[in-house]
Amino acid sequence: MSIKIGILGYGNLAKGVESAIMQNDDLELAAVFTRRDPASVSIRTAGVPVLSQDAAADMKDKIDVLVICGGSATDLPVQTPKYAEMFNVVDSFDTHANIPTHFANVDAAAKKGGNVGLISCGWDPGMFSLNRLYMNCILPEGRDYTFWGKGVSQGHSDAVRRIEGVADARQYTIPVDAAVESVRKGENPELTTRQKHTRECFVVAKEGADLARIENEIKTMPNYFDEYDTTVHFISAEEMKRDHSGLPHGGSVIRSGVTGLNKEHGHVIEYSLKLDSNPEFTGSVLAAYARAVARMSKEGRTGAITVFDVAPAYLSASAPEELRAHLL
Amino acid sequence: MSIKIGILGYGNLAKGVESAIMQNDDLELAAVFTRRDPASVSIRTAGVPVLSQDAAADMKDKIDVLVICGGSATDLPVQTPKYAEMFNVVDSFDTHANIPTHFANVDAAAKKGGNVGLISCGWDPGMFSLNRLYMNCILPEGRDYTFWGKGVSQGHSDAVRRIEGVADARQYTIPVDAAVESVRKGENPELTTRQKHTRECFVVAKEGADLARIENEIKTMPNYFDEYDTTVHFISAEEMKRDHSGLPHGGSVIRSGVTGLNKEHGHVIEYSLKLDSNPEFTGSVLAAYARAVARMSKEGRTGAITVFDVAPAYLSASAPEELRAHLL
Repeated sequence: MSIKIGILGYGNLAKGVESAIMQNDDLELAAVFTRRDPASVSIRTAGVPVLSQDAAADMKDKIDVLVICGGSATDLPVQTPKYAEMFNVVDSFDTHANIPTHFANVDAAAKKGGNVGLISCGWDPGMFSLNRLYMNCILPEGRDYTFWGKGVSQGHSDAVRRIEGVADARQYTIPVDAAVESVRKGENPELTTRQKHTRECFVVAKEGADLARIENEIKTMPNYFDEYDTTVHFISAEEMKRDHSGLPHGGSVIRSGVTGLNKEHGHVIEYSLKLDSNPEFTGSVLAAYARAVARMSKEGRTGAITVFDVAPAYLSASAPEELRAHLL
Repeated sequence: MSIKIGILGYGNLAKGVESAIMQNDDLELAAVFTRRDPASVSIRTAGVPVLSQDAAADMKDKIDVLVICGGSATDLPVQTPKYAEMFNVVDSFDTHANIPTHFANVDAAAKKGGNVGLISCGWDPGMFSLNRLYMNCILPEGRDYTFWGKGVSQGHSDAVRRIEGVADARQYTIPVDAAVESVRKGENPELTTRQKHTRECFVVAKEGADLARIENEIKTMPNYFDEYDTTVHFISAEEMKRDHSGLPHGGSVIRSGVTGLNKEHGHVIEYSLKLDSNPEFTGSVLAAYARAVARMSKEGRTGAITVFDVAPAYLSASAPEELRAHLL
């Protein structure tokens, strides 16, 4: 019997989850919940209802796992605990500093409802975190580095869009090749923020806007840009549409460490991603973990969990003996 | 309280486990068991007894996990089931085709003894397997490739040493750069065995040996070399000692797959290792999994398991809240 998935929200990430479900025969989309007027939302899976998020409670018995596709800033801190009382849930909460609080809130709600709530799933947090954990356990004496990009940062793109005179903007985060190469060689460099990544902005300015001022405001923006070397390109709306419509991303987690009685042997472990579509890849990770959550819930597990708590075999639709025979 | 580890055998891998234990404060070496005369074995950890393997049963209550460091061909098929009746065990059984049988044997023995037996741990099988599993679950439509090297293959080195007239030999497995690059680009190439790896042999010949015959025997050796492009270098015993004493290895697992309603987005996931010392890295993986096995046993788990069955958090000495706060 297939695992019935509900999706809350219908933005880019939700669409990524939806298309991932289509690639997994044992997963079935049961409903999409929205805060908009359901009649205004047209989804891509034939025959699946779009319902108001207020109607979610009525679907309690028809959904095995609800994948919550809201934003981390204001949606998920409210939504995930709320729905964890009713459903097994998965979210992609990515405000690193607030993970302990979010975990505690989801844990209490999920336990109250007898459900499992997996938080902070995706690739960072998510697969990158998992790899940091494995690397640290295998090489306790070492140092790890995370590089992001080349890829579109939605947060930075939004920050540029808020500048007066900007009609549209896209920001790419780019790892500095020399830094990545040094880390790969096991040189354990000390790297400043500026030495690890550069930022490149493509900006469509409103007519008559002061380009020099916009460029200066971007480059000096605290937290977002002031600690980086930033390049700004002004382009037309047509060029934006033609060349920058995608949401590629990726990056690498690299740990170099030493072993041996005299720490005489060096080792480098690297996990890297090159993604044409950040939301579709993230959605694919969420779908695989939704399968794991459904199973762990069936086994009686309750409360909040993270990717650290999920034995890898739970992610696969294949039987354990298949996995051992073909993937081990 | 620290986790008490026993090591069975005292070859390169066992020494790797021993030095890994020194790097982990919560792990403690309790004893080394050998089939040799214990008086002839001098280990590097002060104050730890070296005992006959026949005395292992007497140490049952003083060891939490026994790490079995025998060879896969003849040692582990006998040793791991035998000792799994007495101890929680970890091994690095790597004969892929025989994993199902080995798993069944260890499972029966471990259940009989109320123990946990983790088989086929290390990097391949082990971390590579784990990454193949994660990649396949996230990107169900795709293709994965495993490249090994550059590194020393002990099996191939041994095969060359068995040729008449060969005094010593070292064989390096080398991935073909063009193949790796094509896979990294997501081109999904069809690759023959020959197109994926080359083999390079360094051989010390016995005096008066027929070098042309040796070279020909190597290059045409079935299974080991005949399907590869192989280079043979004859060197002196001094050069062998000076330039080829190490046991470096490594490799990459790469999966490229597609997502999207029309499979329009490509993604590449890569996990790669560059290891100065294959046995020390493998020993470090075994040590981390020994920690996990001790914990899972304490929770009441019994029977055979693999890396697929171990939730990542079990590998770490840190508390779950620490992991969430710092690695997620």
